[in-house]
Parts: sequence; C-alpha cells; structure tokens
Amino acid sequence: VLANKELPDGYRQVLIGDKNQILDLLKNEHADVNDFDIVHTSEVIDMGDQPTKAISQKPDSSISVGFRLLKEEKIDAFASAGNTGAMLVGSMFSVKTIPGIIRPAIASIVPLEEGGISLILDVGVNADCKPEMLQQFAILGSLLMEHVYHIPSPKVGLMNIGEEAEKGNALTQAAHPLLKSMREINFIGNIEGRDLFHSKADVIVCDGFTGNVILKEAEGIYSLLKRRGISDPYFERWNYENYGGTPVLGVKSTVIIAHGISNAKAIKSMILLTKNVLAAKLTEKISNAFHLTVAT
Amino acid sequence: VLANKELPDGYRQVLIGDKNQILDLLKNEHADVNDFDIVHTSEVIDMGDQPTKAISQKPDSSISVGFRLLKEEKIDAFASAGNTGAMLVGSMFSVKTIPGIIRPAIASIVPLEEGGISLILDVGVNADCKPEMLQQFAILGSLLMEHVYHIPSPKVGLMNIGEEAEKGNALTQAAHPLLKSMREINFIGNIEGRDLFHSKADVIVCDGFTGNVILKEAEGIYSLLKRRGISDPYFERWNYENYGGTPVLGVKSTVIIAHGISNAKAIKSMILLTKNVLAAKLTEKISNAFHLTVAT
Repeated sequence: VLANKELPDGYRQVLIGDKNQILDLLKNEHADVNDFDIVHTSEVIDMGDQPTKAISQKPDSSISVGFRLLKEEKIDAFASAGNTGAMLVGSMFSVKTIPGIIRPAIASIVPLEEGGISLILDVGVNADCKPEMLQQFAILGSLLMEHVYHIPSPKVGLMNIGEEAEKGNALTQAAHPLLKSMREINFIGNIEGRDLFHSKADVIVCDGFTGNVILKEAEGIYSLLKRRGISDPYFERWNYENYGGTPVLGVKSTVIIAHGISNAKAIKSMILLTKNVLAAKLTEKISNAFHLTVAT
Repeated sequence: VLANKELPDGYRQVLIGDKNQILDLLKNEHADVNDFDIVHTSEVIDMGDQPTKAISQKPDSSISVGFRLLKEEKIDAFASAGNTGAMLVGSMFSVKTIPGIIRPAIASIVPLEEGGISLILDVGVNADCKPEMLQQFAILGSLLMEHVYHIPSPKVGLMNIGEEAEKGNALTQAAHPLLKSMREINFIGNIEGRDLFHSKADVIVCDGFTGNVILKEAEGIYSLLKRRGISDPYFERWNYENYGGTPVLGVKSTVIIAHGISNAKAIKSMILLTKNVLAAKLTEKISNAFHLTVAT
C-alpha cells in the first residue's frame, strides 16, 4: 500500500498469496482493493523448506505461482521476501540464466561514509567461484550500478587482502589480470576489507562465500550498535529497510529478492526497486552485454 | 619501559636496533639502561620491502638479527611490530615449522560483547587452505586459548555461511566432517559472520583470506566509529593496543608479531603477551600435540 502511493502510472501490483489474508490487510490499511490484482494461493514455502524440493512439492505456493506467472509473461517482474533459496532455484530453473552467463549473482548495497553507495557481489549464490565468474560479476554489477543507480562508468574493485596486484588467494590472483584486461569495465584494482565503507570502487567483486561473510559481519555489527543504543546518521544508512533487496542478476526476467525479516518499509523499498529495475530495462541491457561478449 | 615495570623476575628484554636511538629513547623515558640488553643493528627492513629478499639482503636488520639470536638460543622469544611478511618468512625459514604442521598460522583476538574474548585463525598467512589445515588451526587455536588465555576445553567453530553442516564452499564443506571427527578438540559446528562478536565459540577457524577480510572489515568499522566520535565501552575493547599481536603458531620457537602501527601501549601488550606465551610453554605444548597426532 505504501509503495502503491509512489508507483508511477503504468505499474500495477499483483499480490500473490492467501486471498482472505490479503483482503483483510488491504482493509486494515484502508486501501482500495481495485488498485491491486490478487492471485490466490493455498500453500506456503517456509523459511526452513529445502529450496529445490519446495518449489516442486508446493506448486500452489506464492513463490511457485510467481515464477509460473513470470514464465507465462502474465507479470513483468516478481519480487518476494520469502525463502531465498527457493527464489534462487526458481530464478535459475524456471526463469533460466541468460546465455553466456556462467551463474547468476546477487548484490548488496554498501552505504559509504562520504555519501552515496557502492555495490558488492556475489553475496551468497556462488560459494565457490572461477576467475571468469568474477569477470562476469564485474559486468553485472557495473550494469546494475549504471542503469539502476545512475553512476556512469562505475569503478570496479576486486575484494582482496592486499593492495598489490599479485596479492591474494588463487582466485583473486587469477582474477586480477583478467579484470584488468576487460575494456567493458572500469577496473581500479584491489579493495581491502578496511576500505569497504569509504570505497574507491562503485562495484566490488568477490566470491559468494567472502561476500556473504562480509555482509553478515556488517549485519552483526549493525545489530550490536542498535542493541547498545548507539545512534548515528551514517550507521542508520546501514538499515536494510532502505534498500529493498537485490535483483537476481543474470536471469532472463526481473526477479527481486528481499530480506526475510522485511517490514512494511522494506517491502515498499523492494517494490520500488523492482519498478526501477524494470524501468532501467536491466535484463535487456545484461542480455545485450553478454550477447556482445559471447559474439566478440 | 612500560612492560619492564610489569615483567616478573626472570625475564629480561633484549632490545635489537640502532643503539644510539635506543639509548636516546631510554634516556627520554628515564629508564635504567642496565635493565636491558642492547644489540646494535645497522640496517632497517622497511614496511614496503619484499619479505624474502629483505632478510637475506639486510642481514644486520633487527628482524634478521632477532631470528639469528633465536636460532642460536641466545634469546628465548622474538617479538616485533616490523614488516609482517619478513617476520613470517623468518619464522618459517629460520625458526622452521614444527614437524607434522602443514603451515603455521596467526590469530586475532575477537572481543565479545558479553565479556571475554574469542580467537579467529588463520588471519593472513594462508590465503588458500586445504581442509586438513583448518583441522590443524583448530588444534593450534585451542592450545593458545587454553594455555595462554586460560579457557579450558575451548569450543571450536567453523566460519561458514550457514548454520547447517552441509552449507558452505568446497573448503568448509570438506572441513566440517573432519573437524567433527576430531576427539582432541571441542567442535561445536558452524559460526556465521553475524555471530562473530557474541560467538558461541572460543576459537573460530577459517582460511587466511576469509580471516584477513573479516579482520580488516572490523578494523575499518572501528576507525569509522572513532572518526564519527562514537565512544562505547564495548567497542573500545576492539582497540588493537590491548592485545599485543599474535604468536606465529606452529613454529619451533616463540615468535610474536604485532601490528605495524603499534604505539607504546601496544608494544607493552606485545611484550607481556610474549612473556605469557613463554610462561605457558606454548611451543612445547604444540610440539607435543602434533607429535601425538602424527604418532597415532
């Protein structure tokens, strides 16, 4: 309902879930039921459900139905704060990966102290990566940053454990020269953990294990600050509610995954992010970039 | 000079470096020169020097001389806040690794919100690890925690990206069952980034790439807090000055590496840590543990 007040003409929300619960909620919020389409579902994929099984065993859950509607092009984008694993499985096996892309990735926003944001990816889909995957993350992150967050020619950094090109583990050592050789991105070299929050880079690439550890450490510290009653305008920008989640980058349609603990404000951010990703034609831009990459 | 006031009888500091500078400093601090031995050196390994070359090309630097004195058993322990790489090279090639140990490791203290500390290792020596190395880090960290920090039967956690045993990347997936099978440690399962600062584990094991990223992210956030004027008794415990660095775990003698930016308080902590590691006979305990491990 909050998002609906801010969505421009031409966008319409399709609410997928238990119809009675949806109607009750809309009534409680004094919303006009005609502003929404409602698709009733009778099953629920829980947070603890095994992702691959859940989608096939619960075909009338909101996640399964959402991916079916997306595949049938009855909706243009699908966003959910439900089971992340099931959302990823649906993205890869129902929507499918864009040809040329090894694996999709998800990104997280990093608020910078001096204002603005950077992006870090992958943050969890790909625990083990080949160097060529980091190259692709660099392209995916750059396109997201440029077209959705309006940063032209985004600077790309490689998360590493030293500033020098030769530093790192086998993955980053192999990825560094590959990233440096790419003309389609603006590679600026290595980024260290201590530079994360006043990064020289707009896009930081890493394997999904490292990205997930980085993200969860920051989440842990944010909780600590809250619990200790520390309030600060910069750290307030760490609040996930402001960002609305991440697109699944590299699949054939627009899928947005939000945090499982999302409240009303976070869901509103998720819906507006979905609109921004659609308006930016991000999927098309990614397809074109990889079509060119594969062709040349 | 600060450390000397707290060192018990039977410990004597040998200061290795430019004799005139040392004498000037002792005079400025109104210290008794007879409380110290001084070994003059004429060369300096800079922070930017290439570690392997530096030790052979600057044989009269404090780091080279320190390792020589240690090898000749003229000193019992060697501590420095100099070039970390050179300290590691000296540890591995001059002091040498304890038989049975694949690679030495270094640890970092993690102050816990509820009081007390945990340890995380490796934090930088081994960017790429085999699962068997994480097993060894579990033993090294447990012995350090038990004998130097006096936590009996320390609980060991595996840094991972999910709570479930099967989660993770290829390394942590392979390491989990190996750690679980070890009777010589108290393995409690996976630890996530968000649990770092109120960890259920006393010792957290990870590869050196992950550990280094975690450490530097925390350092970056600590600097942010300072820069933003946020003061909090818990976060004050993040100050590296309190901990004095890390032993090089798994080499044949006592070597302590401190942070390159160490001030007087940090150097004092380094010297007292050196004393604690010596008093705990940590090297002997590690040798015994690996002797047993290799034998059985």
